[in-house]
Amino acid sequence: MKHYTIGVDFGTLSGRSVLVDTDDGTVIASAVKEYTNAVMDECLPDGTKLGMDWALQHPMDYMEVLEETVPAVLEKSGVSKDSVIGIAIDFTACTMMPLDSEGTPLCLKKEYEKNPHSWVKLWKHHAAQAQANRLNAKAEKMGEDFLKRYGGKISSEWMLPKIMQILDEAPEIYNDAYAFMEAADWVIMTMTGNWVRNSCTAGYKAMWHKRNGYPSKKFFKALDDRLENVTDKFKGEIKPVGEKAGSLNKAMADKMGLNEGIAVAVANVDAHVSLPAVGVAGPGKMLMIMGTSTCDILLGEEEKIVPGMCGVVEDGVMPGYFGYEAGQSCVGDHFDWFVRNCVPEEYKRAAEEKGMNIHSYLTEKAEKLKPGESGLLALDWWNGNRSCLVDVDLTGVMLGMTLLTKPEEMYRALIEATAYGKRIIIDTFEKSGVPVNELYACGGIAKKNPMMMQIYADVTGREIYIGASDQTPALGSAMFAAVAAGKDKGGYDTIYEAAEKMGHVEDYTYVPNPENMKIYNKLYNEFVILHDYFGRGENDVMKRLKAIKKEVSAGGASNA
Amino acid sequence: MKHYTIGVDFGTLSGRSVLVDTDDGTVIASAVKEYTNAVMDECLPDGTKLGMDWALQHPMDYMEVLEETVPAVLEKSGVSKDSVIGIAIDFTACTMMPLDSEGTPLCLKKEYEKNPHSWVKLWKHHAAQAQANRLNAKAEKMGEDFLKRYGGKISSEWMLPKIMQILDEAPEIYNDAYAFMEAADWVIMTMTGNWVRNSCTAGYKAMWHKRNGYPSKKFFKALDDRLENVTDKFKGEIKPVGEKAGSLNKAMADKMGLNEGIAVAVANVDAHVSLPAVGVAGPGKMLMIMGTSTCDILLGEEEKIVPGMCGVVEDGVMPGYFGYEAGQSCVGDHFDWFVRNCVPEEYKRAAEEKGMNIHSYLTEKAEKLKPGESGLLALDWWNGNRSCLVDVDLTGVMLGMTLLTKPEEMYRALIEATAYGKRIIIDTFEKSGVPVNELYACGGIAKKNPMMMQIYADVTGREIYIGASDQTPALGSAMFAAVAAGKDKGGYDTIYEAAEKMGHVEDYTYVPNPENMKIYNKLYNEFVILHDYFGRGENDVMKRLKAIKKEVSAGGASNA
Repeated sequence: MKHYTIGVDFGTLSGRSVLVDTDDGTVIASAVKEYTNAVMDECLPDGTKLGMDWALQHPMDYMEVLEETVPAVLEKSGVSKDSVIGIAIDFTACTMMPLDSEGTPLCLKKEYEKNPHSWVKLWKHHAAQAQANRLNAKAEKMGEDFLKRYGGKISSEWMLPKIMQILDEAPEIYNDAYAFMEAADWVIMTMTGNWVRNSCTAGYKAMWHKRNGYPSKKFFKALDDRLENVTDKFKGEIKPVGEKAGSLNKAMADKMGLNEGIAVAVANVDAHVSLPAVGVAGPGKMLMIMGTSTCDILLGEEEKIVPGMCGVVEDGVMPGYFGYEAGQSCVGDHFDWFVRNCVPEEYKRAAEEKGMNIHSYLTEKAEKLKPGESGLLALDWWNGNRSCLVDVDLTGVMLGMTLLTKPEEMYRALIEATAYGKRIIIDTFEKSGVPVNELYACGGIAKKNPMMMQIYADVTGREIYIGASDQTPALGSAMFAAVAAGKDKGGYDTIYEAAEKMGHVEDYTYVPNPENMKIYNKLYNEFVILHDYFGRGENDVMKRLKAIKKEVSAGGASNA
Repeated sequence: MKHYTIGVDFGTLSGRSVLVDTDDGTVIASAVKEYTNAVMDECLPDGTKLGMDWALQHPMDYMEVLEETVPAVLEKSGVSKDSVIGIAIDFTACTMMPLDSEGTPLCLKKEYEKNPHSWVKLWKHHAAQAQANRLNAKAEKMGEDFLKRYGGKISSEWMLPKIMQILDEAPEIYNDAYAFMEAADWVIMTMTGNWVRNSCTAGYKAMWHKRNGYPSKKFFKALDDRLENVTDKFKGEIKPVGEKAGSLNKAMADKMGLNEGIAVAVANVDAHVSLPAVGVAGPGKMLMIMGTSTCDILLGEEEKIVPGMCGVVEDGVMPGYFGYEAGQSCVGDHFDWFVRNCVPEEYKRAAEEKGMNIHSYLTEKAEKLKPGESGLLALDWWNGNRSCLVDVDLTGVMLGMTLLTKPEEMYRALIEATAYGKRIIIDTFEKSGVPVNELYACGGIAKKNPMMMQIYADVTGREIYIGASDQTPALGSAMFAAVAAGKDKGGYDTIYEAAEKMGHVEDYTYVPNPENMKIYNKLYNEFVILHDYFGRGENDVMKRLKAIKKEVSAGGASNA
């Protein structure tokens, strides 16, 4: 008898379900539902205005995803619900909300619905920067050790700054909230009735450490007296990803058209859940999830402090290992900026005549160039630098232009810049004692841009495997669902077994070209010199230019 | 009775005559003649192939300019030839040729016409770089003092490297040449029958010094035994610009429709002749001749060694002063590169809809920006750096880009970069004891781009005057013609008197805005830090990238 699991990937604007064959990971059917309220960044559903940099969501939109897409994949596939042995989800993070003691989001209660702070704060809610700054300054002053596990800085996107903003701006919500919870865990609670939290978001987004717990009460009190016991508002046991959170309850089973009692896995995060989906089941293999930005996931045997990583969490990616996360803030965004702002009409027209999109046209021209032939070198800091400098105030550089420099040369230089940035991340991990032997890539760019992948192989000197699925996170969730169900039910005992059977890479790889590596080694040396010069304090021109920009925008100097 | 003079400006592709009223400098008529053979950079008129980087001209093209445009301005203006008291010319330089003892260009003689080295080498003939390198290396090794007067380097465009190339590649031409002469002086000789050379090209292009003469025979011998007496091939007295070279002979008077015997001035160079045409008649006022590149001309009371200047020549611009020349290699070229390679279709379309050219459209957007608002900073080295680093291997930099950076911000950053480059030149002159109190500008950009001129005023902190004439060099020549004719004949005794009466600036000026100056002072400080870091050896990344580029282009590494 065949067995199937369902994986649900909750993204920023929509949720996607896939129904997967547990034998080999084949995706039998998939279905997508756009969120009804999408991202609320201007006003609440009733018209209440929001401040600058806000980004909220509606919790019932997540329920709609489950209620529409799960029945849809069952119907499309023709698979009987009796063959579905488990369900799991992955989510954006930190996407959080305040709950009452029943687990009801405060925003769904009449008395709170007009207060923006009662709603779900999406990962990209950026209005808690002041709170993040306060937290970081205090932690640094008090010599708090936990900072090191997060590359020296807690992001404004994470749990504590978001809670601090609620406390600052809506203390009544803070007081009345029985719990603050990741949306991911709330969805799991809705399906199981259990207050269970996942080790991934707890570790990466809420400063939890498997052995040391949270930062001390003393630290929280120093931040604000009222925060002393803030961790009391984190309810429920923290379970490692890969475990079962509970059994599917009747109410949700009915709504989704599944059998009551099937396994529901502990929630997970979209990037992290992708690792087993490309078949990675151990240390030394870094997965790059490549999109507008790149997220890097890597397993290690020990907890090492790696400068500039986004976080290291025990059991945070796969149980039994330390999961490391790093990232580059500007990858696809980089090339899109270039195409929107820097590509001449002549190129656009030529691309149209050839029936190509402009990225393909530029790539066709750029791939004819040899490494080093353009004489260009760029620093990929158009959106700051995440790893390894953790500095949002850094900005882009391009160097080497002459009157003969062509757009495709600059385009390729931007791609190369992200590859050099990747190599710095890899080198930093290795220097810190976390080996990186092979690279895995998934996401749109990884499949669509062979030139870029070859450049990454040549620059990093590492073979690159490409994830086979187009729906990597949802597939990864379906694999965790199979583990939650267990071998007895037709699933697997461990995520490692699931990764071996259900995870796949393409049958081609990108192998470093030794001649190109030689040239790229030289160029990388130049990149490192500039990276350190501009990024490590020798010449803080970028920060001073930003300060001037701020000063000017606030008044002073007139138009010329 | 009214008096008139004629000025003839010999450019790269055409010659232009103007007929000017000596009372007030009004241009009564002008006429242009394109050179029949333009620039010969692929083959001789008979089809003989030329090497790479060659650029030749045909001497009879210059004669055609005189024979067609001078009668044309007489006819257009209705002015009688009896009222024309003198003629003068300015020319590109170093544009040189070998002559026989009669003054006939060797290329016009049957026995030499197939040899490319017998023809006129245009200023931008760049095939003598090897010779220039040899000359510079030797001069440096021998500690030759003259190098300092030329910013430390003799350009391959100048007289000696061009002669050395002839000696190396066509020793028979070198031997048979009775003289090597600037085309400017040859045209004057054709009109007067006199072997007279002008102090401007002799000083700026042929290493001549009014007090010390040429470099020593010892030096020339060290370069090549056969060059020991090379200066014997420079025939004729060197006269300061502003003097009379002779009287117009019958043959040329007939061809041009002028009276025999009128004054013919000593030849001059296009940039240098422009100074009096904007009314500058003394030290402290720097004229910027702004086009694809910018040439800066400045008078000083003493001979100072200014790092990176193109040259200092006594009587080289106006008699009685030391004329200083400096330059920026990439100004208009810079913006043209940007428009051709970096402006998106959307902007092109919007400009077309508004009926504007793309430069005007970008300028309209860029002038709405405040100084410092873009957060961008560029080094204007797309074509290397002439003054003050004298380094063709430097390349462009742009820094500060974010995902919100717009094309008009980059466009403005390039303009600002040239303004910072200008300020470095000014600061260098002042530090070396040559004051620069005011700026004068002429050339297309100066009149057409008020935003750019205001930026130059704000960045340099100096008031800028704009030359009133659209034909500045030709007008300048007409003024020198009036001086050659003398007061008795209805002209002037000195070029200073002529400058006062005939030179004009627009009645508006660009005055530095104190608020903007404050911001630009900060940005300039940042520019200087980067300028010195990349330009003075601290990080020679640009040279290393060029070396890699060369290595790669020669083979190695394959396409990715």
